[in-house]
Amino acid sequence: MSQNLYPEPIEKVINFFKKLSGVGRKTAERYAFELLEWQKEETTQFAENLSNLTQKIKRCSNCNCIIDNTCNFCLDQTRDSNVLCILSSVKDVYLFEETKTYKGHYHILDHLINPIEGKGPDDIGLDKLLKRFENKSIKEVIVALDATLEADATALYIKKALEVNDVKISRLAFGIPMGSSLEQIDEGTLTKALMGRGSF
Amino acid sequence: MSQNLYPEPIEKVINFFKKLSGVGRKTAERYAFELLEWQKEETTQFAENLSNLTQKIKRCSNCNCIIDNTCNFCLDQTRDSNVLCILSSVKDVYLFEETKTYKGHYHILDHLINPIEGKGPDDIGLDKLLKRFENKSIKEVIVALDATLEADATALYIKKALEVNDVKISRLAFGIPMGSSLEQIDEGTLTKALMGRGSF
Repeated sequence: MSQNLYPEPIEKVINFFKKLSGVGRKTAERYAFELLEWQKEETTQFAENLSNLTQKIKRCSNCNCIIDNTCNFCLDQTRDSNVLCILSSVKDVYLFEETKTYKGHYHILDHLINPIEGKGPDDIGLDKLLKRFENKSIKEVIVALDATLEADATALYIKKALEVNDVKISRLAFGIPMGSSLEQIDEGTLTKALMGRGSF
Repeated sequence: MSQNLYPEPIEKVINFFKKLSGVGRKTAERYAFELLEWQKEETTQFAENLSNLTQKIKRCSNCNCIIDNTCNFCLDQTRDSNVLCILSSVKDVYLFEETKTYKGHYHILDHLINPIEGKGPDDIGLDKLLKRFENKSIKEVIVALDATLEADATALYIKKALEVNDVKISRLAFGIPMGSSLEQIDEGTLTKALMGRGSF
């Protein structure tokens, strides 16, 4: 379809929605036209909250988590300062929090090593990570990255870089996701699950 | 999951995204966290364009279409003023334009008759519709509403209200959508297609 059919203010909003991953032209159009049905004040508030998002949300200079004012994770004295969990995305922190089984600290990498996106070892933010080890309190590191090639490369690189610090380094287990049957999983996962088999 | 886990500015944006139909908590979270990765200026521009949307976009007082400044449809002298197409949504106008086969005028109803949403015959905007017939130029009316119960009720109501104006009233044909096989369509559609069968 011709791309400039709608009045310009609508086209502009459509183009911004389209930037979100998983949102194509059709969905973006649907969102924009739905907004037209909203109360005027509602859309204005949405817009205000959007600009607040970038203005109010900052990253913790220590762990890279998103913070409102102060970092709830770094300043929490009840957390175990011996354990550090390395993540690739701020959102993963909240997934970990939901499990309610992890009480250590977090560190979020700037990027994964991803040659396709032009991200090399210099882009992961290793200097910030190494700084966490300066006060010698960390005894255990859990590399909690995804099960992707980029994550594998990054995990290996981090492992090598941290080996000098005399810490225990582990990575999340790979295997069959809970609730799924063998039929549903791919060979790669099954191979990993077989290799990682244990007594029960 | 607990609903107030993320910092407040993020929660607020999530809640606005959730208002869009088809967007659940998980998708809204994904959108909000993606916005955090955007350039600051980009999010600010998105916010600005959102508030522009409600400020700049108006409805044509004649046909109810969305307009930037003036109505491209009502003021277009090349359009056939004898034909009026009645639609239920502003977006449908653009679907019609894409077909490039319709060159008449449009009229968008305020609402369909929908007792569940508390919308009765008084809510469809009949007065505005009847006003279109005042200058006696319209000879044909195409009721181009959806194939839903609400649209059926509204179409019948409009038909009755317009009968006094001595115009030809038709409704879009119901039948098998192009490209689909009989196997894929439901009995209701097949029944309509059978009833509407014609020579070829």
